Amino acid sequence: MAKINGDLNKERERCSFNISELTILMDGGPEKTKERRERENIMISKKNFYDGIPEEYLSYKEKYEQAVKKSVIVFGLVRRLQEEGKTTIHNYRDVLANLLRASDVSTGFPLALHYIMFMPAIINQGTKEQQAQWLPRAWDCNIIGSYAQTELGHGTFIRGLETTATYDPISEEFVLNSPTLTSYKWWGGGLGQTANYSIVVAQLYTKGECHGVHSFIVQVRDEESHMPLPGIKIGDIGSKFALNGINNGFLGFDHYRIPRNQMLMKHAQVLEDGTYVKSRNSKLNYGAMVFVRVVIAFDMVNYLSKAVTIAVRYSAVRRQCQRKAGEPESQILDYLTQQHKLFPALAACYAMKITASKLWDTFNTVNEELLAGNLERLPEIHALACCLKAISTSDTASFIETCRLACGGHGYMHSSNLPSTYGNAVAACTYEGDNTVLLLQTARFLAKTWQEIENDGGKLTPTVEYLRTAKVRGYSHKWVNSVENIVYGFQVVCMRKIATCVQDMQRRVASGLTFEDAWNLSSVQLVAAAEAHCRVIILSTFSSEIRGMTETTSPELKQVLNQVVELYSVYWALERLSDLLQYTTINQKDVDSLRVWYEELLAQLRPNAVGLVDAFDLKDEMLQSTLGSYDGRAYERLMEEALKSPLNAEPVNHTFHKYLKPFLRGKL
Amino acid sequence: MAKINGDLNKERERCSFNISELTILMDGGPEKTKERRERENIMISKKNFYDGIPEEYLSYKEKYEQAVKKSVIVFGLVRRLQEEGKTTIHNYRDVLANLLRASDVSTGFPLALHYIMFMPAIINQGTKEQQAQWLPRAWDCNIIGSYAQTELGHGTFIRGLETTATYDPISEEFVLNSPTLTSYKWWGGGLGQTANYSIVVAQLYTKGECHGVHSFIVQVRDEESHMPLPGIKIGDIGSKFALNGINNGFLGFDHYRIPRNQMLMKHAQVLEDGTYVKSRNSKLNYGAMVFVRVVIAFDMVNYLSKAVTIAVRYSAVRRQCQRKAGEPESQILDYLTQQHKLFPALAACYAMKITASKLWDTFNTVNEELLAGNLERLPEIHALACCLKAISTSDTASFIETCRLACGGHGYMHSSNLPSTYGNAVAACTYEGDNTVLLLQTARFLAKTWQEIENDGGKLTPTVEYLRTAKVRGYSHKWVNSVENIVYGFQVVCMRKIATCVQDMQRRVASGLTFEDAWNLSSVQLVAAAEAHCRVIILSTFSSEIRGMTETTSPELKQVLNQVVELYSVYWALERLSDLLQYTTINQKDVDSLRVWYEELLAQLRPNAVGLVDAFDLKDEMLQSTLGSYDGRAYERLMEEALKSPLNAEPVNHTFHKYLKPFLRGKL
Repeated sequence: MAKINGDLNKERERCSFNISELTILMDGGPEKTKERRERENIMISKKNFYDGIPEEYLSYKEKYEQAVKKSVIVFGLVRRLQEEGKTTIHNYRDVLANLLRASDVSTGFPLALHYIMFMPAIINQGTKEQQAQWLPRAWDCNIIGSYAQTELGHGTFIRGLETTATYDPISEEFVLNSPTLTSYKWWGGGLGQTANYSIVVAQLYTKGECHGVHSFIVQVRDEESHMPLPGIKIGDIGSKFALNGINNGFLGFDHYRIPRNQMLMKHAQVLEDGTYVKSRNSKLNYGAMVFVRVVIAFDMVNYLSKAVTIAVRYSAVRRQCQRKAGEPESQILDYLTQQHKLFPALAACYAMKITASKLWDTFNTVNEELLAGNLERLPEIHALACCLKAISTSDTASFIETCRLACGGHGYMHSSNLPSTYGNAVAACTYEGDNTVLLLQTARFLAKTWQEIENDGGKLTPTVEYLRTAKVRGYSHKWVNSVENIVYGFQVVCMRKIATCVQDMQRRVASGLTFEDAWNLSSVQLVAAAEAHCRVIILSTFSSEIRGMTETTSPELKQVLNQVVELYSVYWALERLSDLLQYTTINQKDVDSLRVWYEELLAQLRPNAVGLVDAFDLKDEMLQSTLGSYDGRAYERLMEEALKSPLNAEPVNHTFHKYLKPFLRGKL
Repeated sequence: MAKINGDLNKERERCSFNISELTILMDGGPEKTKERRERENIMISKKNFYDGIPEEYLSYKEKYEQAVKKSVIVFGLVRRLQEEGKTTIHNYRDVLANLLRASDVSTGFPLALHYIMFMPAIINQGTKEQQAQWLPRAWDCNIIGSYAQTELGHGTFIRGLETTATYDPISEEFVLNSPTLTSYKWWGGGLGQTANYSIVVAQLYTKGECHGVHSFIVQVRDEESHMPLPGIKIGDIGSKFALNGINNGFLGFDHYRIPRNQMLMKHAQVLEDGTYVKSRNSKLNYGAMVFVRVVIAFDMVNYLSKAVTIAVRYSAVRRQCQRKAGEPESQILDYLTQQHKLFPALAACYAMKITASKLWDTFNTVNEELLAGNLERLPEIHALACCLKAISTSDTASFIETCRLACGGHGYMHSSNLPSTYGNAVAACTYEGDNTVLLLQTARFLAKTWQEIENDGGKLTPTVEYLRTAKVRGYSHKWVNSVENIVYGFQVVCMRKIATCVQDMQRRVASGLTFEDAWNLSSVQLVAAAEAHCRVIILSTFSSEIRGMTETTSPELKQVLNQVVELYSVYWALERLSDLLQYTTINQKDVDSLRVWYEELLAQLRPNAVGLVDAFDLKDEMLQSTLGSYDGRAYERLMEEALKSPLNAEPVNHTFHKYLKPFLRGKL
């Protein structure tokens, strides 16, 4: 291993806690750490993965072709693990997550949706027969599926989808059709040139009646020749901000026929004669949506951990400005403004990971209740997953961009890996539900809960019970600067915001507005209420989980994790200070001492910052960053990567002779 | 012209004011509008400019080659205008700005720095003889220059630059040298493969003594062969977030010699025998920095206007969700949450343009004073330009990203032109001075001013006079919801913040800390104080200028512009509410009615939103956006652009046979 940068060495020497202890704690035990590292190493050992010209120099078409090449390597590994019995249909998501985390194909995989959406749709919505027919071939990757729901003109409002699936009882087939340009499916990952099958969501018509949207398994390309089948119009939707290896596609149908048994019929059915049999419960599909949204929160932890690792290590290596004449320039990590940019982002990695894990466990419990027919907690969990997805993605995007900007000009270089990390992460603010729309879904649940409280309704589900407590208790006691009190402050804020919104809406409805118009007029405040609810959940989960987790850790680790919890809480209190000033008794003196506390926490975390990012255990092959490598050879790597630019392969570019020289001579 | 989208037609019909009147008002008169349009049309008429495959599909190398090809077209036009006497060395920046605005080469120009930095450096820092020697050739583009200051290891701290220029009195030459890897010049635009000359900033050594950084004209490539000259190590720094046509380069020297008269010697000189003659005034160079930063603020107006035009028009065309059963889906522009995202950004275009124009005029006045030897207002203007650059770039970047996200998935497509607009604009948060560093420079001036006020010092310069007034008057009167009072609120906030910082620092210095350590500990708050100062300047300039400008306009236009001013002011009051709650008498009831006012303003601006963006007069050829075109054919254009993806040129990509098929068959 190359020599390690002296400043980074010193940082690691003065770290107050054992870094491995933290890594193992966050993984959930030494076994889990071992397992994760094994999977990552399998991936990393595929050295050829990182060979050749860096992706950012390729053309759009080459990026796709490279992504296909790499996909078959990654998913070939998945298949090998399957064959070796190391992964099953029940844990393949974990395995996949580890492998993808280690692969760092920053343009994304055109085969990913096959695992993430196509197979789960068959598992969740297919009958036993359909599962038997399709899953083995999907599992062995003999067919590759995509998922086509969103249309060119339709995203959020699923009821507005235009693609039709009309049942023809004579041939016992569905006829899929795209009646307009806006009805073209748009965005399906891998749909453009890669998949040969897709789940298609369409309006079901039978016996002349529309029964709303249902899912169908549709073959789109010939398995032998890969040619689009007759009646199918399919292709690539074009270049995007990032993720240009995913091959998002469009798909249109010209009266395209599929057999009756390719409608996924676990919940609703169309019988041979065209009779429609309704689903027992239309809410059962919510479970899958909750699952996907928690997975997104984990993805965000990965993206943000990467960005924070890069920015913190680089800030330890980078020196700029003399603070005392004659002394060496300071590490930029010593500037309070830099700490203020990076440490809240660092704390957020821990906060989000712990909250998502806890929510994951809760979801599994609720899912078992669901399967046993108990739907009581579904709305609560759905509301929770909505706001957690929204806040985790928007916080992550904005923290990553802050980290990137904190690396100055070098953070603008692709070789830092920060631009791609941002471009990939920010996509999640939109996919699987636009963040504003999701926060309004959470708000709808909160408003309903609030009305139950006002009507003195019965038992509340656990995560919103605090609203009643806050209503009863109010906020009249003197403000105290503590984590518990900050959490309580946010509870009161959420309670007061939702109460005000409900009151405003009732007033507006009473004055003659429709409910939806009243809702629209309150929507900016409703979004704020949902955000406050999510802050309550994250802050309270984070602090209580860390309290539990650190009961058995070393005192050194306990201390630093407590500091992380405090920093995160105080940061958000100061960020949402106007709410606390409005709805609690916090006064100017409290605010001043809150700020002092915040600045003290930055100083306390300073010596452990590098240790806290090292604990994420992101190997250089996963970071793929000139600025963030473990050895801190940032400048050397920047130059090494620059020399890979194809422009540097020849001393004079041909455009000099063709364009520049004639121009310089006044001949152009 | 194609049929215009019905919704956009309706929007334009119900616009309450005359759109052309607003365009002309913002241009500064009908003559200016005519002139601008003429220049833009010259550019647009170069139809071949937009031909061929869209830039986002090209490889990195092809992007550069395309940018060279387009550069010689654009700068060929500039030269033609010069020859026709339509532009001179005094107004070429205006002409250039119009042409570049119209060109929409989103990857940037490798020749731009020649005009923006190379020529101005010679004009500002060269002697008469040097100007006579170099300017004619530069003006005619017989040579192409870059500007090399930043080094791999040195950006903000110019005194820390490592490149040396050592005078050799025997040969009467300077010897340029790069002693370390970190001393390599890094970032110069066009420096990689395009320029054959560059300004180089280096530490000047003569007679064994270092005299700090000075500028030199350095030839880097042979004029005939374009080969790098012996002793020069030069190349491309590699791929970036955006602006990949600019050809940012690195440059290293191996004891490379240049004649004595290639040091720019207007201010300081090195005589033939090596005697160093100091500059009369070291601050004279600040003038050029102020100029560049105001230009950046204008650039930001262009970027943001583009993003807002795209997002507002698309939001009028896009319909999503039924608000009443049976009714058509709503235009998304009708949702309050969407208005809340877009209208403050729209207002910011007007606010920033007017503030930058006013600052530009003030700067010209001060520049004349400067040339007459009066440096009194230089620190003030410098402080102002610093914070205006920082706030205009960070506001613009964050508003553009909000606009982009407000367009949902389609805003993630390159064909919307929103991703590139963001990538290009956000670069300005870093170049020409990192925003945090710049805000701290403003804060340094404010802290100094505050100490003068406390010591009862004499006359204050105009833009900070309010600090004394606010100190004397304080904030004890009842809060009023008005623009004037919001401006006064921000004045008090800035005053209180800077007062607290100065007090904290004095306390810390008294307790034994060095000034720089005390400064560092206050720096997060100092940044906030500088931001508050900038808000004061923008809000007060915007409201008072609009008051003046609308004295002679139609009452309809006056009304809508007043609404824009009000919306912008109320938006920022709510965004910085915690400051107002801490430092003014605003109470909960005031806040509630401020919010009601804000929501009313959104509703008032709603019918004029499309008119307000149409008034930016950005032609489709300049917007280059599927979502934002004047005719609103968003979906048609999305599909048309998708079909240009090279992946759609063939029904089956060759990777199917090479990788996918073997994988599907289990053979990989």
